[in-house]
Amino acid sequence: MKKLINNPDDLLPDSLTGFANAHADIIQLQRNPYVIHRKNQPTKPKVALISGGGSGHEPLHSGFVGTGMLDAACPGHIFTSPTPDQMIAAATTVENGAGILFIVKNYAGDIMNFEFASELVTAPNETVIVADDIALPKDHSMGRRGVAGTLIIEKMVGAAAEREHNLAYCKSLGDRICANTASIGAALTSCTVPALGRPTFDISETEIEMGVGIHGERGCSTQEFTDATTLTHNLGDAIYDELKPKKGQEILLHINGLGATPLIEQYLIYEIAQKYWKQKGITITRSLVGNYTTSLDMAGCSMTLTLLDPELTTLWDHPVHTANLRWGC
Amino acid sequence: MKKLINNPDDLLPDSLTGFANAHADIIQLQRNPYVIHRKNQPTKPKVALISGGGSGHEPLHSGFVGTGMLDAACPGHIFTSPTPDQMIAAATTVENGAGILFIVKNYAGDIMNFEFASELVTAPNETVIVADDIALPKDHSMGRRGVAGTLIIEKMVGAAAEREHNLAYCKSLGDRICANTASIGAALTSCTVPALGRPTFDISETEIEMGVGIHGERGCSTQEFTDATTLTHNLGDAIYDELKPKKGQEILLHINGLGATPLIEQYLIYEIAQKYWKQKGITITRSLVGNYTTSLDMAGCSMTLTLLDPELTTLWDHPVHTANLRWGC
Repeated sequence: MKKLINNPDDLLPDSLTGFANAHADIIQLQRNPYVIHRKNQPTKPKVALISGGGSGHEPLHSGFVGTGMLDAACPGHIFTSPTPDQMIAAATTVENGAGILFIVKNYAGDIMNFEFASELVTAPNETVIVADDIALPKDHSMGRRGVAGTLIIEKMVGAAAEREHNLAYCKSLGDRICANTASIGAALTSCTVPALGRPTFDISETEIEMGVGIHGERGCSTQEFTDATTLTHNLGDAIYDELKPKKGQEILLHINGLGATPLIEQYLIYEIAQKYWKQKGITITRSLVGNYTTSLDMAGCSMTLTLLDPELTTLWDHPVHTANLRWGC
Repeated sequence: MKKLINNPDDLLPDSLTGFANAHADIIQLQRNPYVIHRKNQPTKPKVALISGGGSGHEPLHSGFVGTGMLDAACPGHIFTSPTPDQMIAAATTVENGAGILFIVKNYAGDIMNFEFASELVTAPNETVIVADDIALPKDHSMGRRGVAGTLIIEKMVGAAAEREHNLAYCKSLGDRICANTASIGAALTSCTVPALGRPTFDISETEIEMGVGIHGERGCSTQEFTDATTLTHNLGDAIYDELKPKKGQEILLHINGLGATPLIEQYLIYEIAQKYWKQKGITITRSLVGNYTTSLDMAGCSMTLTLLDPELTTLWDHPVHTANLRWGC
């Protein structure tokens, strides 16, 4: 294993400190336990959005803390859930009179820890569970995983909270976006967790891992890689079967790089994808391309699609000012 | 070679089309020859900034076309200079009465082609040559290479042009920023050019390539990799010896990912670097961390430092609205 680190133990604390120092105008880092929260607290009561999860997916979630998106993020160890004390500390810091919405990716550890925190937090709170990864069947025993669609829920609900919608509204909005969002990914390589020191799975020079998650777990099938078009169509077909968008439906199309795939390839995938959806009669009105929900140094990409309506589009366009997503302000 | 492509020949045109479709609100793509130019032409005469170079370094340069930065970018084939007809087409499209400033990274092919274009363009024009890579000696026969510092020159001069400074001013400003900017990089892996199909150099599991460029060329030395702190200090020492900043000097510190290095590692490097410069008595007032000047799928990073003064800081902070660098608007 060759990585730009000193040792696996110091990586997360030192990296978080670096993140906090690099973006001191936007966020602050609390220690013991670790919480990243927005620097400029809102002046009026607003629903406080708190997310978090294992590290190694940067910029998710810490990179999305700031005005118009998350109020706080709780970073766990690499690919490991944060602990309830982090969520409680986050809640104590950012709750300001309108309650808390937890946004949680659907993994057993995250669910358990956020649930525990939500019971201990005294302020009114709700939870939106993100389970956008359609690689697993809907009736999977653990439920589906939360992947790149999480950013979209955080962005849109963050805008709603900024517009002073109340907790019940933000919770219901989050659930609605989840129901209208589907993702699926494919990997060309595995990734190497520093503490493990070797790739989490083996894959040959001619294969791809279809329906891969973001924790170095295997996908639902290992397939021969033929070409980018076939791969992109396969991702599109899976999402089409899931969301069954009608002709004329407006969508947000998000092509997400998993970490080590160059932008030039991601934009190629975007181009194939946008042609695919156009041929289905679907109208792409918003797009996002880049490394947003990563899996350390994994090569590959995912496709996420959200069915838009005028409200969701307005919320997407609302100004956002975070370390890694920024527009309109 | 396993890459998210169909074939090497279609990669660039399809990726450019994808880029143009994903960012149709900011940029437009001209074909035959390829030029990316800003969509919203300025309403008043302003110096038109044109850059370009080989592809494979995304988001440089196309991702920096838009209000407050470049007016146009000319994308060459991967790691290959664009041709004069691209620069002439760009000039024809974006020149609007205040002349043209070409910003050119110092490589023989780019210099030759931009020089040829500058002679054929009828509008008044000047060229800023970026040669910020201090891995090569100052008196190297080909001169030093242009690397991640290019973004800083494009950003600051872009702001000056937006503020209606004239061509002579922008040229002189560009030269001044170049003189105050130094970069050096290190790679953990080589990168694979799609048309070549194999890594451009071999490197063992314990080595790094110090002073690496952004075209998959070898660096100035192959060294044993010990740890992130030693590496970062070595990068810092090289820049310190070059720029010799005085105590109290304000700087912009840019840690750039070369493509396949996760953000969590880049922020670790940033943290080590910011401590290094603080210990030297230097004041970091602006920071940028992320994949901005890449070398396809190369793992590694570079450090760039620019000595700031109040004017440069103001120009850095000026609003910018491009596909991949955006703040203040």
